[in-house]
Amino acid sequence: MKTTKLLLVGVMLISAAFARAGAATWIWYPGDFEIRLSNNMQNRRTERGAFYPPFWRMDSHYVLVEFFKTVDLEAPEEVEIYAEGEYNVKLDGRLQFGKLDRLHIPAGRHRLNIRVYNQLVTPAIFVRGKTVASDTSWLVTFKDTEFVNAGSWNFNDAQATPSQFSLPTTPKAAAATERGEASVLVDFGQETFGFLKLHGLKGKGNLSVYYGESREEALDTAGCETLDRLYVDRSQPEDFVTSASRAFRYANIAGGGTLLFDSVSMLYEYMPEVYRGAFRCSDEELNRIWDISAYTLQLSTREFFIDGIKRDRWIWSGDAYQSFLMSYYLFFDAPSVTRTLYALRGKDPVASHINTIMDYTFYWFMGVYDYYLFTGDERFVRQMYPRMESLMAYALGRRNANGMLEGLSGDWVFVDWAEFAMSKKGELSFEQLLFCRSLEVMATCAEIAGNGERAATYAALSQELKQKLFDGFWSNEKNAFVHNREGGRQSSQVTPYANIFAVLLGYLNAAQTQAVKQSVLLNPDALKITTPYMRFYELEALCALGEQEHVLKEMKSYWGGMLKLGATSFWEKYDPRESGAQHLAMYGRPYGRSLCHAWGASPLYLLGKYYMGVQPLKPGYGEFCIKPNLGGLQWIEGKVPTAGGDIAVYADAKTIRVTADAGQGFLYFCSAKKPKANMGAVEKVGDNEYRLLISEHKKQYVVTYRNAQ
Amino acid sequence: MKTTKLLLVGVMLISAAFARAGAATWIWYPGDFEIRLSNNMQNRRTERGAFYPPFWRMDSHYVLVEFFKTVDLEAPEEVEIYAEGEYNVKLDGRLQFGKLDRLHIPAGRHRLNIRVYNQLVTPAIFVRGKTVASDTSWLVTFKDTEFVNAGSWNFNDAQATPSQFSLPTTPKAAAATERGEASVLVDFGQETFGFLKLHGLKGKGNLSVYYGESREEALDTAGCETLDRLYVDRSQPEDFVTSASRAFRYANIAGGGTLLFDSVSMLYEYMPEVYRGAFRCSDEELNRIWDISAYTLQLSTREFFIDGIKRDRWIWSGDAYQSFLMSYYLFFDAPSVTRTLYALRGKDPVASHINTIMDYTFYWFMGVYDYYLFTGDERFVRQMYPRMESLMAYALGRRNANGMLEGLSGDWVFVDWAEFAMSKKGELSFEQLLFCRSLEVMATCAEIAGNGERAATYAALSQELKQKLFDGFWSNEKNAFVHNREGGRQSSQVTPYANIFAVLLGYLNAAQTQAVKQSVLLNPDALKITTPYMRFYELEALCALGEQEHVLKEMKSYWGGMLKLGATSFWEKYDPRESGAQHLAMYGRPYGRSLCHAWGASPLYLLGKYYMGVQPLKPGYGEFCIKPNLGGLQWIEGKVPTAGGDIAVYADAKTIRVTADAGQGFLYFCSAKKPKANMGAVEKVGDNEYRLLISEHKKQYVVTYRNAQ
Repeated sequence: MKTTKLLLVGVMLISAAFARAGAATWIWYPGDFEIRLSNNMQNRRTERGAFYPPFWRMDSHYVLVEFFKTVDLEAPEEVEIYAEGEYNVKLDGRLQFGKLDRLHIPAGRHRLNIRVYNQLVTPAIFVRGKTVASDTSWLVTFKDTEFVNAGSWNFNDAQATPSQFSLPTTPKAAAATERGEASVLVDFGQETFGFLKLHGLKGKGNLSVYYGESREEALDTAGCETLDRLYVDRSQPEDFVTSASRAFRYANIAGGGTLLFDSVSMLYEYMPEVYRGAFRCSDEELNRIWDISAYTLQLSTREFFIDGIKRDRWIWSGDAYQSFLMSYYLFFDAPSVTRTLYALRGKDPVASHINTIMDYTFYWFMGVYDYYLFTGDERFVRQMYPRMESLMAYALGRRNANGMLEGLSGDWVFVDWAEFAMSKKGELSFEQLLFCRSLEVMATCAEIAGNGERAATYAALSQELKQKLFDGFWSNEKNAFVHNREGGRQSSQVTPYANIFAVLLGYLNAAQTQAVKQSVLLNPDALKITTPYMRFYELEALCALGEQEHVLKEMKSYWGGMLKLGATSFWEKYDPRESGAQHLAMYGRPYGRSLCHAWGASPLYLLGKYYMGVQPLKPGYGEFCIKPNLGGLQWIEGKVPTAGGDIAVYADAKTIRVTADAGQGFLYFCSAKKPKANMGAVEKVGDNEYRLLISEHKKQYVVTYRNAQ
Repeated sequence: MKTTKLLLVGVMLISAAFARAGAATWIWYPGDFEIRLSNNMQNRRTERGAFYPPFWRMDSHYVLVEFFKTVDLEAPEEVEIYAEGEYNVKLDGRLQFGKLDRLHIPAGRHRLNIRVYNQLVTPAIFVRGKTVASDTSWLVTFKDTEFVNAGSWNFNDAQATPSQFSLPTTPKAAAATERGEASVLVDFGQETFGFLKLHGLKGKGNLSVYYGESREEALDTAGCETLDRLYVDRSQPEDFVTSASRAFRYANIAGGGTLLFDSVSMLYEYMPEVYRGAFRCSDEELNRIWDISAYTLQLSTREFFIDGIKRDRWIWSGDAYQSFLMSYYLFFDAPSVTRTLYALRGKDPVASHINTIMDYTFYWFMGVYDYYLFTGDERFVRQMYPRMESLMAYALGRRNANGMLEGLSGDWVFVDWAEFAMSKKGELSFEQLLFCRSLEVMATCAEIAGNGERAATYAALSQELKQKLFDGFWSNEKNAFVHNREGGRQSSQVTPYANIFAVLLGYLNAAQTQAVKQSVLLNPDALKITTPYMRFYELEALCALGEQEHVLKEMKSYWGGMLKLGATSFWEKYDPRESGAQHLAMYGRPYGRSLCHAWGASPLYLLGKYYMGVQPLKPGYGEFCIKPNLGGLQWIEGKVPTAGGDIAVYADAKTIRVTADAGQGFLYFCSAKKPKANMGAVEKVGDNEYRLLISEHKKQYVVTYRNAQ
């Protein structure tokens, strides 16, 4: 059988982008660097030294890919070729022999193919000439047809290959050290992450390190969640750094034999992120809540958005969805979002829900939509669209005879960690609601991907499901959605979940909204949420209904409550009714609770979106709105990062100041007197309600008014 | 988000096999060792030093898998655990800490889970205790549900891990050496494969090796297909072995600078196979044809059944399909077949036809059926069934409005390398015929997999397509199937392909069969086949119609023709009308033709199945038939390997001797007189036609008769 089938059909069908003079960057099959990197990261989890990888399918990069570019050169050009993997080069379809790290390309129009194999790490290339430069205009395929645009990140140095990527570290001193008889307890003063450094370590013996997010955990050598154990034999004193990064505030170091060391410090390992967002207000406790939220999100933003730094260190879709939203108000780091979305989605065929969790599949779709809304990145949506299609096909394929989803074998119906009894059986209103929203997202994205027919199909499916949601779960008696239906019978339990999301997604009419607000959101007898995870949505729904004053009190009580207990980062769970060591326990383990959990950082999002009041109305903040809300504070001031720059907001009871770097939109406010503005024309839009068009960039609009919220 | 979801549902649903005392073997996810190994092998192709990997999607093993076994121990047991990869161990669902290479299991019933991660090579384990032993009764999954039986081969030594696998080598001397001015030409006397060894190499300079299957190729340093180039610098003489295995008979070694060496030999690299089949007859040329066929198949049976040893070294489904059939009459090495079927099929989702070729998808299905027929291995069929389903779904999804397949974008419609013009457009009768047969195979395999409903669906689909085949392509005028239909119009061209397969598959009635025999098979004006690939089926069809005498002459003329030209292995293509160096050229390259190509070895199959006349009637040779046919020879003698042992056959005009080690079946023969047998009762079944039941194992049946074929 022969071999050289010259299959250029696929290539020819794509309108070839021509090379422009530009900076070269490492490129790969889109998503493949991300998926491979996530394997490294997620496999770093340990439990008391034991390897603890995820339980869902772990995917890999395509091991053999082909890059393609049509170049049109005014003059002949010598290009340098770097590759991660074994590779070959074809010029105009002809295989090149000899040394391949330099290629002479004659003037004129030429086709360049580079085929790379790498089993261990993602195949990638870096090509650089006078005008030729590898970038995302290059095409790539994992077979010999169906080329797509290559993926890249920020690897712009030929020598710094993608597979070498690791997070940077910086030294950090201990805050306090207590020497015990055969051990030393080191306190770094706050939750942190990285490698422990023992200065001047010498002698011979077993070295054990017991890590603790709390002092109790570090001292409980039999119960702490993470530890390191190794044998040391050094005749000369030398600095020693642990080999695996851990989350801790305290480290309890026990040296056996003749081991001695001078002192202990650490190397803080972090994802370089810029705090583009900022927030200050007249309430110092709230400022502290914002700061600790930002630090919590910074710590749990690593190669990807992870759940918590001590324990799972995995990418969970429901957790990441919240990190995305928070990060739009702090870092606005788009590649961290797309990396995480690629890693979560993995490869086809779909073998389970994302993380095996039904709700987490839907959060993934919603995360794609939000990414599009905040960044306006249509190219990403088009690139991801086929994987959205196949994931949605999986979900649609699991519908029951009523066209709804219920947990099948292998499905985890999660919802939330709740203290009260909650059925996961039958059809949950919450799951159908997220499913319905995901179908709406599919309709939008199909449109972006240029597939109007699919868009119409998804729109029809979502309409149909929305009707079933109301027919099946809305109770006029309860004034709310009931929790679920088993065997066709509506349960009588009302849980907050579907009701919260129905408010957030605008699925309710005015009467229903008020009904839910009273029967669920503001009802002191409603079932209590005890995770910051669901408090995120609960408080957001209240903000969306204008209850900023109420939410502010809740934030101060709930997040302030953690601060009063000495939190230096926010927790996986906080129940004010608990006390002492109860706050450390979870999952039946004394230190099972994560004390630095991304979903604990939601005040970042609430304060940015509902107090500074900044949000995108059109993709990429092309249009925005700004609705400052003091929520009872004397003043607030801050910045919200956007795709094109920042939006700065200051508000007190008499003055509002706004500056936008890009886009345009209205500033909305309520004033008890006729307001004035230094620029633009204030419009009256209702009783005491006004708006001002913000369209001049980088100029400060100042409104004088009398707050009437 | 938490982590330890105890998902034992999937496990519990499977009736757990209990550990028996037995030999431990390395186990893995079924197909994953095979897929990974095929990547290594297929990427070894080079063209004049350039890396030349396949152009279709290359798959990988699952990087993270979990093995599971329920053990029931009479006494406590200490088991050793070996793993390729990072791993953890759970006993009764509890993660184990500390050293994991030994595990203490208490008496009683226990659940053992071992989760292994390996990005580079296939995750695998080897577990051994007094009674506990890893084997294919262990279950394995790539997620946390849907466990299947583990795969294994013959890695029964804890230290010899699967990833270390490589083919053995053995030294072989040169047959002749010619020293030139600055080069040495070494002739190994026959086609061979392996590493070149230069004895006592010393000095400094560039070393070039030009390989040739022919003397011409080795001497043509600018045109030979494979070569090695390297720089050597050695002050002391030392033996040197080339790093990559090559196919050659001749090696032309050119040393520059001060390079010197004493002599040249080689290390022959081979797959250890036993020639269980044997054949001898009264015609020495035919014996030589059988021998060279066996050697050709041996050479091209490597880690997998490959096409040819010089050039592609890839696994091509159409080529492998023939190797399977030949190998049943020579090695009967079942794992070589299943390895190849796994490697060809790869992973889901199906991204193209197998090797991108439409016909090759169908040969794969037919190969699974033949494997089942020859070996009776139902377990393999059940294991492979989901991958059969998804591949067939791919094919069914590409049908046109007429329910037929035509080449779509990315499809290669191959059929054969032909000298005459042949359209690949529209609906080819040949492709529909193979498609129809594949649907029949699906019906059989669905039944074996316990899915009667799917079986019925496939049976109906194949019936429907068969009807369309006759309606669409049978021409009463041509007395044959026409080649194709474009835009609904039957072409007037008759090619051999569909007609040959229609005979072989028994799709024709008696009149149609005779029509095809005359209009195509025995028609001297019919279009000529010039590859041994299609001659395989052409000659088989003639044998199936009783034309053994005719076929014998064809074999002597065609394969004997290659021998007369000095062939030491059989070729990719042979056209008696060519001469000299024309025999070396192909694909527009002077040495493009492969001179050792598996599909050249078909006499092995024809002689075993249609002269010795042995074939299985029921799966695994549970029932067989033996129809010796002298085809004009004075005597034939040989052995055909089967699943349960061998079947030995001797026949001349007066005597037939048969011995079977297992199974039962009839010996069929024609006699001009009333025959006699030493055992059993001869039955008359027609005019001069008799049969004798062979049911006693390992006893020689002797029939005295007068041949009346």
